[in-house]
Amino acid sequence: MAVPDLTVKRLGEATIDSPLSGVKFIPENSSVIYGKDADEVIREYNENGRLSAFEQAGPREKIYHDPAWTHAAILTAGGLCPGLNDVIKGLTRTLMVRYNVPIVFGIRYGYQGLIPSFGYEPMLLTPDSVDGIHEIGGTVLGSSRGRQDEVTMVETLKRMNIKILFCIGGDGTLRCAHDIAMEVERRGLNISVVCIPKTIDNDINFIDKTFGFETAVYATNSVISSAHNEAKGTPHGVGLIHVMGRDSGFIAAYATLANTHVNYCLVPEDAFSLYEGEHALLPSLERRLRERKHAVIIVSEGAGQHLFEEESSRRDKSGNVLHHNIGEFLHEKIVAWGKEINLDLSVKYFDPSYLIRSLPAHGTDAVFCEMLAQHAVHAAMAGRTDVVIGHWNDRFTHVPIPVATSSRKKIDINSSLWDSVKSVTWKCYR
Amino acid sequence: MAVPDLTVKRLGEATIDSPLSGVKFIPENSSVIYGKDADEVIREYNENGRLSAFEQAGPREKIYHDPAWTHAAILTAGGLCPGLNDVIKGLTRTLMVRYNVPIVFGIRYGYQGLIPSFGYEPMLLTPDSVDGIHEIGGTVLGSSRGRQDEVTMVETLKRMNIKILFCIGGDGTLRCAHDIAMEVERRGLNISVVCIPKTIDNDINFIDKTFGFETAVYATNSVISSAHNEAKGTPHGVGLIHVMGRDSGFIAAYATLANTHVNYCLVPEDAFSLYEGEHALLPSLERRLRERKHAVIIVSEGAGQHLFEEESSRRDKSGNVLHHNIGEFLHEKIVAWGKEINLDLSVKYFDPSYLIRSLPAHGTDAVFCEMLAQHAVHAAMAGRTDVVIGHWNDRFTHVPIPVATSSRKKIDINSSLWDSVKSVTWKCYR
Amino acid sequence: MAVPDLTVKRLGEATIDSPLSGVKFIPENSSVIYGKDADEVIREYNENGRLSAFEQAGPREKIYHDPAWTHAAILTAGGLCPGLNDVIKGLTRTLMVRYNVPIVFGIRYGYQGLIPSFGYEPMLLTPDSVDGIHEIGGTVLGSSRGRQDEVTMVETLKRMNIKILFCIGGDGTLRCAHDIAMEVERRGLNISVVCIPKTIDNDINFIDKTFGFETAVYATNSVISSAHNEAKGTPHGVGLIHVMGRDSGFIAAYATLANTHVNYCLVPEDAFSLYEGEHALLPSLERRLRERKHAVIIVSEGAGQHLFEEESSRRDKSGNVLHHNIGEFLHEKIVAWGKEINLDLSVKYFDPSYLIRSLPAHGTDAVFCEMLAQHAVHAAMAGRTDVVIGHWNDRFTHVPIPVATSSRKKIDINSSLWDSVKSVTWKCYR
Amino acid sequence: MAVPDLTVKRLGEATIDSPLSGVKFIPENSSVIYGKDADEVIREYNENGRLSAFEQAGPREKIYHDPAWTHAAILTAGGLCPGLNDVIKGLTRTLMVRYNVPIVFGIRYGYQGLIPSFGYEPMLLTPDSVDGIHEIGGTVLGSSRGRQDEVTMVETLKRMNIKILFCIGGDGTLRCAHDIAMEVERRGLNISVVCIPKTIDNDINFIDKTFGFETAVYATNSVISSAHNEAKGTPHGVGLIHVMGRDSGFIAAYATLANTHVNYCLVPEDAFSLYEGEHALLPSLERRLRERKHAVIIVSEGAGQHLFEEESSRRDKSGNVLHHNIGEFLHEKIVAWGKEINLDLSVKYFDPSYLIRSLPAHGTDAVFCEMLAQHAVHAAMAGRTDVVIGHWNDRFTHVPIPVATSSRKKIDINSSLWDSVKSVTWKCYR
Repeated sequence: MAVPDLTVKRLGEATIDSPLSGVKFIPENSSVIYGKDADEVIREYNENGRLSAFEQAGPREKIYHDPAWTHAAILTAGGLCPGLNDVIKGLTRTLMVRYNVPIVFGIRYGYQGLIPSFGYEPMLLTPDSVDGIHEIGGTVLGSSRGRQDEVTMVETLKRMNIKILFCIGGDGTLRCAHDIAMEVERRGLNISVVCIPKTIDNDINFIDKTFGFETAVYATNSVISSAHNEAKGTPHGVGLIHVMGRDSGFIAAYATLANTHVNYCLVPEDAFSLYEGEHALLPSLERRLRERKHAVIIVSEGAGQHLFEEESSRRDKSGNVLHHNIGEFLHEKIVAWGKEINLDLSVKYFDPSYLIRSLPAHGTDAVFCEMLAQHAVHAAMAGRTDVVIGHWNDRFTHVPIPVATSSRKKIDINSSLWDSVKSVTWKCYR
Repeated sequence: MAVPDLTVKRLGEATIDSPLSGVKFIPENSSVIYGKDADEVIREYNENGRLSAFEQAGPREKIYHDPAWTHAAILTAGGLCPGLNDVIKGLTRTLMVRYNVPIVFGIRYGYQGLIPSFGYEPMLLTPDSVDGIHEIGGTVLGSSRGRQDEVTMVETLKRMNIKILFCIGGDGTLRCAHDIAMEVERRGLNISVVCIPKTIDNDINFIDKTFGFETAVYATNSVISSAHNEAKGTPHGVGLIHVMGRDSGFIAAYATLANTHVNYCLVPEDAFSLYEGEHALLPSLERRLRERKHAVIIVSEGAGQHLFEEESSRRDKSGNVLHHNIGEFLHEKIVAWGKEINLDLSVKYFDPSYLIRSLPAHGTDAVFCEMLAQHAVHAAMAGRTDVVIGHWNDRFTHVPIPVATSSRKKIDINSSLWDSVKSVTWKCYR
Repeated sequence: MAVPDLTVKRLGEATIDSPLSGVKFIPENSSVIYGKDADEVIREYNENGRLSAFEQAGPREKIYHDPAWTHAAILTAGGLCPGLNDVIKGLTRTLMVRYNVPIVFGIRYGYQGLIPSFGYEPMLLTPDSVDGIHEIGGTVLGSSRGRQDEVTMVETLKRMNIKILFCIGGDGTLRCAHDIAMEVERRGLNISVVCIPKTIDNDINFIDKTFGFETAVYATNSVISSAHNEAKGTPHGVGLIHVMGRDSGFIAAYATLANTHVNYCLVPEDAFSLYEGEHALLPSLERRLRERKHAVIIVSEGAGQHLFEEESSRRDKSGNVLHHNIGEFLHEKIVAWGKEINLDLSVKYFDPSYLIRSLPAHGTDAVFCEMLAQHAVHAAMAGRTDVVIGHWNDRFTHVPIPVATSSRKKIDINSSLWDSVKSVTWKCYR
Repeated sequence: MAVPDLTVKRLGEATIDSPLSGVKFIPENSSVIYGKDADEVIREYNENGRLSAFEQAGPREKIYHDPAWTHAAILTAGGLCPGLNDVIKGLTRTLMVRYNVPIVFGIRYGYQGLIPSFGYEPMLLTPDSVDGIHEIGGTVLGSSRGRQDEVTMVETLKRMNIKILFCIGGDGTLRCAHDIAMEVERRGLNISVVCIPKTIDNDINFIDKTFGFETAVYATNSVISSAHNEAKGTPHGVGLIHVMGRDSGFIAAYATLANTHVNYCLVPEDAFSLYEGEHALLPSLERRLRERKHAVIIVSEGAGQHLFEEESSRRDKSGNVLHHNIGEFLHEKIVAWGKEINLDLSVKYFDPSYLIRSLPAHGTDAVFCEMLAQHAVHAAMAGRTDVVIGHWNDRFTHVPIPVATSSRKKIDINSSLWDSVKSVTWKCYR
C-alpha cells in the first residue's frame, strides 16, 4: 500500500515550557518507522532517500497551550466500546493533575452536547469525579450517533472558551472532528482537535490496534464455550455466533484462535458459498455433523453480504451501511437445509454484541486506554490538531485524521493470521 | 394449598446391610414438616391428628439393591441447565466409590439413548472419566427433548440388566420417568427410577429450590449491568432483557433484587397492560425516560401472553406450550410508541438464555447438585422408585413423581418476595 | 438444643398508619415454626401446648415511628464481607423511597463514627448517592473493629436526633448494639436499634444463613481449581488452601462440595491428628501422593487449634480469639514430613481471605442482602428494637440480639452436610 | 543496545515439499527489521550497509523433516503460566492435522520425563485427547524445575526416535534446551530443538511479548480492586500487593495502568528508599494516609532488594536467585512505621502469584499461544534448531536460543511506559 503524507498539523509554534518534571521528553523529530521488512525498507530508502514514518507521540519540552488559561472538553460518540471510561479518566487526570489545566468539561451525548438546542448541560470533570469510573462499562458522558453542524459546534467551543476538544469515536466521529478542525482553521481559532480512535472491530488503517478490541476477544471466549456446550448437548447440535465486524473480521478471527472449539470462521474478507463449490458451508457442515455430531460457527456481521440478492442501501445515522443480518440469515438457511437433507439438527444462536460493548476494559486493554489518553493530552498541549492518537511497532504515534479515515484495515487472507485461523478450522475446509 | 399424599413407593423390603461406614443413617420414619406457620401447624394437628410431612432423604442402614449385582444408568433430558455435569459426577462417584456399584452407564442424548434404533452406544462412566467434568457447562452425556416409548425403554433396561435409572430433567422428563416406573411395576421388575429435577425456572411445587437457578440469577446479574450501561449510553436509552421463566417469573424477580438497576420487572404472575390503566407500562416508561433519560426492563418469557390476540397452540417436543416471544414483541412496541410520542429513544435487546443455560454451576449451586446426587443414590439403593429428590426447610426429601408434576410453583404476588421486587422498582409503579 | 425465649422488644405501641400501599402486611402474630421434624414438633406441642417460633418479619399495617420526623443512621463494623453495599443501598432506598424518611446518615468507620473525638463527619445518603454502590465491593461507609463507649454513642444519637440505628456487623458488633439498646432503654429514649448480621462464616445460631457466605463459597471455587492445577503441575504437588472459618467450617465444607477437586477438608468441628491414628493426615497424604501424585487440602482458619501446644490467649480488638495460623503451620509440617519420608513434594499455599471479603455480592446473595435490608426497615419502623433480622425456613424473622449472640452455629458432624463432605473426600479417609 | 548475530541454525537443507496447501509460504529470506526509529535505521544502514533483522517465522514451501517418519515430543518446564495447555494443543494439532506427523509424545514433568530413572511414562497426545485442554489452567503434561543431564536426555530422544523436541519454559529451560541442541550437534543427530519462551514476567530480550503476561495483567486487575476496597474499608487502610516480577517490573507497571487505583508502583528497575530522600516511600505514604485515608501499593517480587543488608546467595533449582520477600518486608516496615508515627493504620497483604499462574489463558493471550505453537511447528519442520519462537513488530520471528538468554528485558525508566506509570501515581511522587 502506498503510504500517504503522514505530516501532522500544528496550531502554531510551541514556546511555553512544559510543566512536567521528571519525565523523558520526546524530541520533536522523533519518528516511528512504517516498514517492517528489512529488504523493503532498504529498497524504499534507496529509491526515495527517506523512510515513511509516523511522528512519535509523547510529552514535549515546549508546549503550545498555556495550561493556566486552557479549558478542555471531552466527548464520546457512536456505540459503546470497552474502555471509554478509562480514556475519560486518563484524559481528565493527565490534564488536571499533570498539566494543571483548571477546567475539563464532559460533553453529554456526543456531538449533540455541543448543539445548544438539545439542552444537555456539560458535566464538570475532576480527578475525584472520575475516580472509580474505569471499573464500570459504558460512558459516563453518554454518547449519540450521527454528526452535527460544525459551525454551531465551533460557536459553542468558542463561547465556552474551550481550547482543546477530545473526541473519542469511530470513523464517523473522526470525520466530524476533522470538519470541526477545518472550521476552526477557517476562523483562525487556536483550538486543538485530538481524537482517540474507537473501533471495537480494530479496523483503522495505519494504526495497529484500537482499544476495546482485546476485551471483545476476551469476552467472546466464553460465548464460544457456551456455544460449544450447547452444540454438544444435542445430537447434531450447531452453535452459531454472530459477532461484531462490519467490514473486517478481526474479532471473529481472533476469537477463533482464542477458543479453538470453533469449526467455521466466516469473515467479510473471505467470501464463501452456501451450497456449491469446494468449500461450500452446508455440505461441509453436514459431513461434520454426521461424523462428529456437533459444530460451532462464528460469523462477522459483515460476512456473506454477497449472499443477499441486492446490495443494501440502508445506512444508519453515522452513515454506516446497514448490513443484512447474516447471523439470522444463516440460522434460517441451516435449519432449512437440515430439513432438506433429513438431519434432525438443532441450532442455537448467539448474538452477544451489546453484552460485549457495554463491558469495562480490563488488563492490557485498559493499559492501552490510559496510555492513549495520556498521549492525547501531550499531543493537544503541544499544539497538534486534526490528529488521531495511533500505535505502531510498539510506540504511540500521531496520525492525521484524513489518513486514519482514508480506508479500512482488513484481514489479509495471505497473512500469518488468516493461515493460523485456517489451520485451526482445517478439518472443515477439506 | 391442599397437601397431596406424600407417600413414596418402594420396590420391596430393604434387607441388605449398607456398605457405608462412618455415616449417620437416617431412620426410616424421619420426616420433614410441610407447614411453616406455627398457628397453622397447630390447627392442622388439632384437625387431623397428624402433620403433613415429606419422607426425609439420606443413607439408610438397610438397603434394597445388592451393590455387587447392581448396574446403574444415568440420563439427562431437555434443555441445558448449569449443574448437569456436577450431578452426573456426584451420582457416578457415590455409586462406585461409596456403594461399590461396579457398572454405571451414561445413556447418550436423553431417552433417545434407550431406544436402540437411534444407534447411540452408552458410555461407561468411572470416577476417573468424570473427574473434571464439573468445571465444564452442558452435559457430557448429551441430551434431547421429547418422550420415547416406555415399553421399548424398559426392554433396553432389562436387556442391559440395569437396576437403577437416574433421570435428570424437567417436567416432561419426570412424566416420562413415571411412565417407565409404571411399566416396570406392570412387569414386576425390580428397577428403581429416581429423578433429579431440573428446571432453571425453579418452578416445581413441593420443592423449594432446584439446581441451576442460582447460577442463572448470578449470570443475569452482569447482563443487567450491561443493559444499564447501554441504556445510560444514549439519550432515552432502554435496556430490555428477556430471561427464562416459561410459567413463573422467579428468575426475573430474583435478578431484579440481585442487581437493582432494573426499573421494570414483568412476570407471568402479574398481568400488565401496555397503554392504559394505572400501571400501564408505556406511559410509565415515558415519564421515566423524560425524567431520568434511561430505563432497564426485565421480562420473563412467559409474561404478557395475554397481550397476544390468540392463545398459542404450538407446543415443543417436550409438550410445553410454545410462547409468543414477549421480548421481541415489547421491543417492537416500545420502538413504535417512541415514534408515536416523538421521543428519540434507543432500545437495546438482550436475550442471554443459551449463554446462561450452558454455564457450569458454581458455588452453593454446585454444592446443591452434589448433595442432590448423593441423596438420589441413597434413595435408589434403599429401593425407592417413582421418586424425585426434593428439598424443603433446609433438608433433602423424597417426593413422589406425580406430586412434583401435579402443578407449577409460581410467584405469590402477596408474598414477601414480590413485595421486595415492587419496593425496588417502586418509582416506576407510581 | 433448648430453644430460648424468642420474644422481640418493642419501643411502644404502633399507632401510625403505614405509608406503604399495594403491599401485603404481615399480621402482628405471624410466626415461623422452629422445628423441622414432624414427630418432634408433635412431641413439643403435646408436652408444652405450644410451639417454639420466631416472629415473622415484614411490613406492618401500623408503625411506631412517624416517618416525617424520623432520622435514621447506618453503620458497618468489623471486617469486610460481600454485600455490605447492597445492604446500605437497600436500607437507604427503602427508608427514603418507600417510607419517605427524610434523612439517612451514613456513619463513617463503624462505631468510631459515633464518637466525636475521632472527628469523622457522617455522610448524607440519598437514593442517587447509593445508586451504583452495589456493584462495588467493600463498604462506602468504611468500617472499624472494636467496641466504643455506649454512653457517648447514645449521646451522639440523641444530639443528631436519630430515631433508628442500623448496625451491620458480626458478633462483636451485635453485642455492642445490644449495649446501645440497653443504654437507650435506661434513658427511656425511643430509638430503635436494628442489626443485620454479618458473618461470612455463616455461624450465627437460630439464623439459617447470613449474607456474604454464598459469594465466599462461589469465590473459593476458582481458588480450588487453581490449587488443583498447581498440584497437578508438579510431581507430588500439594495445593493447600486456608479459608475463613474461625469457629465453624461451613466455608471449607461447602467449598469442598462445590468443587470436588478437594481431597482433604479440615474444619474446627472435626479434630484430626497429623501423624498417628486411623485418619491421620500425613500418612494418608503420603499414600495419595504416591498413588495419584497430587492432592488438594482445604483448611478452615479455626481448624486444628488442638495441634498447637498452648491455647492462644491473644484476642483482636473485637474480642475474638486470635488463632494460630493453621495454614502456615500445615505448610511447614507437610514440607518437613516430605523431607522425612524422602518424597520430593511441592506445596503451593493459598490464602484468599481478603480477595474474597472485598468482593461485591452477586446473584442470590445480593437478593438476600436487599431483602434483609427491606425487612430491617420494616422492623425498625414498626418499633422493634434490640433485634437482629434473621432467616428461617425460607422466611425472614426477628431474632432478639441476645439469642443471636448466645452461641455459634457449627457443622453437626452427624449431619447430611458433613456426610456429603466425607463422601466426596472418601478415598482419603480410608 | 548492540544487536547480536541473529542467524538461526538449521539441521540441513530443506528438500521435501510441504504437505500444506492453501497457505501463504514465507520466503526463506523474509526478515523483520529490528530498529524502530527512522533516523536510527538510516544511520545503521549508512554505517553498515545492512540492517539488523530477525528471520521471519512461518510455513516454508520446502521442509526438512519427512512428516511420515517424524516423531515429535513436547515438554513443559518451570512454574505454571497461563497458556501452557493452549500451546500444547496448538503444537499437537498442527503437527498431526496439518503436517500429518503420526506420533506426538507428551513428556511428563519437564526434563525429568526424559530421564528414565524417574520412571515417568510419556503420554500419547492426539487431537482428541487435547480437545478441551485449553479451557483449563496448568499443564496437562506436568512440569518440574531444574535441569537434567543432556547426554541422558539425548539418549532417550534417540531411543524413542524423536526428531523434534518442543520445550516450553523460561530462562533455565531455554539454556537446558540449548545444551540438548549442542549435544545433538556433537553426535551429528538430526533432531530439531525448538522452544516456546514462557515467562509470565515478559522479560525476554529481543522478544516483544511472551504468553501468559496478558492474562497475568488481566487477573491482577481485580486484585487491585480488592486491595482498594480493603484499603478504603478502614481508617488509614493500606492495600499492599506483591506481584510476580523477579528482575523486571512489567506486571506491576501494567497492572498499575490497568487499574489506576494504585498509588505506589515499586519495581526492580527504580530503586526507592523507605525513610529518607525526595521520594522516600514511608513519609509520602504518611502524607497520603492523613490526607486521603487510604493507599494502594503494588510491588514486584524483585523490587527493593537493595534494602536488605546482604545480597541473597540462595538460588532455586532452576538457578534463579531466591529473592528476599520484599512484600512481607514492606508489610512489617509499614506496620512498624505506623506505630512510630502513631497512626492507627491497617495493612492488608495480597500475594496472588499462584492464583494467577494457574489460570487458563484467555482472549488475545490465547491467540498468541496458538500462533506461537503453529509457528514453532513450521520452524521445526523446516529444520530449524536451537531456536526460540519470538515476536517483534507484529510478526513472529526465529531467535537463536543464546540470543534470547543473553540478558533480560527490563523497564526503561526513560520510556513512555514508565512515564505513564509515574503520571498515574503522580500525587504520591510529589
